[in-house]
Amino acid sequence: MKVINDYKKKIDNELKAFFKMKKAHAKKISKDVYNCVNILEDFTLRGGKKLRPLLTVFGYTGYGGKDTKEIVKASIATELVHSFLLIHDDIIDNDDLRRGGPTAHKVFDKKYDHSLGESLAIILGDISFCYALEPLLESSFDNDKKIKALRRLTAVVERTCYGEFFDVIGEVMDVDEKFIRDIHLYKTANYTIAGPLTVGAILAGASEEQIKDLIKLGIKIGLAFQLRDDILGVFGDESTIGKPVGSDLIEGKKTLLVLKADNSYVNKKIGTKLNKTEISKIRKIIIASGSLTYSKNLITKLIESAKLDIQNSSIRKKEKDLLIYLADYLEKRTS
Amino acid sequence: MKVINDYKKKIDNELKAFFKMKKAHAKKISKDVYNCVNILEDFTLRGGKKLRPLLTVFGYTGYGGKDTKEIVKASIATELVHSFLLIHDDIIDNDDLRRGGPTAHKVFDKKYDHSLGESLAIILGDISFCYALEPLLESSFDNDKKIKALRRLTAVVERTCYGEFFDVIGEVMDVDEKFIRDIHLYKTANYTIAGPLTVGAILAGASEEQIKDLIKLGIKIGLAFQLRDDILGVFGDESTIGKPVGSDLIEGKKTLLVLKADNSYVNKKIGTKLNKTEISKIRKIIIASGSLTYSKNLITKLIESAKLDIQNSSIRKKEKDLLIYLADYLEKRTS
Repeated sequence: MKVINDYKKKIDNELKAFFKMKKAHAKKISKDVYNCVNILEDFTLRGGKKLRPLLTVFGYTGYGGKDTKEIVKASIATELVHSFLLIHDDIIDNDDLRRGGPTAHKVFDKKYDHSLGESLAIILGDISFCYALEPLLESSFDNDKKIKALRRLTAVVERTCYGEFFDVIGEVMDVDEKFIRDIHLYKTANYTIAGPLTVGAILAGASEEQIKDLIKLGIKIGLAFQLRDDILGVFGDESTIGKPVGSDLIEGKKTLLVLKADNSYVNKKIGTKLNKTEISKIRKIIIASGSLTYSKNLITKLIESAKLDIQNSSIRKKEKDLLIYLADYLEKRTS
Repeated sequence: MKVINDYKKKIDNELKAFFKMKKAHAKKISKDVYNCVNILEDFTLRGGKKLRPLLTVFGYTGYGGKDTKEIVKASIATELVHSFLLIHDDIIDNDDLRRGGPTAHKVFDKKYDHSLGESLAIILGDISFCYALEPLLESSFDNDKKIKALRRLTAVVERTCYGEFFDVIGEVMDVDEKFIRDIHLYKTANYTIAGPLTVGAILAGASEEQIKDLIKLGIKIGLAFQLRDDILGVFGDESTIGKPVGSDLIEGKKTLLVLKADNSYVNKKIGTKLNKTEISKIRKIIIASGSLTYSKNLITKLIESAKLDIQNSSIRKKEKDLLIYLADYLEKRTS
């Protein structure tokens, strides 16, 4: 859709302008700090979708916000939060690849001594969180709205961290469907869809009631987004998802796909080093058990329900269409 | 001093009230999230000095701020930032002890599986940063002042992260006195003294000029604070500093003490597992070389200069005395 692509370009340009300013400042401090900001810029711009800033923009215009230049500026806050969370998540999961390139700690491993990569990436994530607050604080919206939007953003990050906590301790626990849903709810659903949408809506002056409606529908899409992510983590192609094939299986990620397959071979194999034949066998079991269909049906149900919520909401017509388009895209996405 | 002790109690109570609220919320989510918040509370309250919130309070009242109840509430932001930075710093330095107890990742190691400690502590630090923004956002000061104070706080954390970055890459580089000064300037001086003071002053409505003066004198005290910290890291007593004797030497921390000793035995030994005899020998060399005296003289010079700045500033008389008292205490502190 043209309007989405146009905003995506504007968001990318805004991110570039932001990093240009940060790099000019860093250059005055030292070459190494400059390199560090450069690595964060590269990591952030490598991400293609810019889904979160787009949602912030549409949350704003969807409730009558007129200053599109200013909302694009402020919207990059959500992308910088995303970088912060991904960088720390990749350290925690010990992942090597992200967005078709090395994860931040792997970039540092190459640049500096091997053992410093994780330490430097912890700091880089912290820097990204710091940076994230600036576009909102510096924006020209009413102070009252800015404070509310920041309060909402920090509450979303807080819940996301709780979700990350669930995810990590889930590794050493027996988990059930409810636990997995809680991980998705806290770790993904809030900050991927509901968070960015509501930050935009708050800046447009949406009411408490309208924010509640947005959270409800945003969480549905967010849960579907994560379920789709889990499918891509098992069935996705390295060239499109930017991660190795079967990476979630090798990592031992406890997904609904694995849980619902309820198969002793799968349970024994996940979390171990898997070869192509084993990955292929696990995929077949997940399909044959009906687990893939179960997840896909759940995604469709969530997206359909969210689309109905969008239709019944007080969002403006144009943004209703955009959000429905994005929901459909997220249901079927391959990357 | 009674006024300092009184405020310290109020700050502790405010932190307890804050964590009570967070724990009530966490309890509704899950037992594990509740435990996690509990660990953060324990870690935060274990720190005795509450230096940063005190400085925020005095920065506020020192420029005529009257709402002492509200500034105490807002001041805990700086202590929560401190917890965030310490938790991540302890992971990076692989430290076991802090404030006379285990570091956050060590607490998690005990509670959950060993390999999860660092991951959970990364998240705990992130949560503490999130929390830190809330007391400021929720305070009843003018929105304009709140935004300015938040902008200042994030700028301070940004610089601290740059300093942490310096510190980590310093491990694999030859460093000189300027580099060490830069680490101190970025990593410590800003967020320990100048940051908290100016956040308070901004909330009281201090002018740009007054803020600049505060930063200047705050950095001097902050540099002295770090130099004193380095002396305690080599000569301090475990029971008072809450870290093992000679921990900085074992860790291989590149301090001014070590640099100025300029001794081949010291350079060879630091960063290795040291026994008591070796630590004692290094201490003697640092004393005999004049390096300890060099650092002590530098501390005295910085504190004297800062005290003069305080006298010449437009801070109110009562707070001038309090800041001079704190500067003298920091010069001589043993913990």
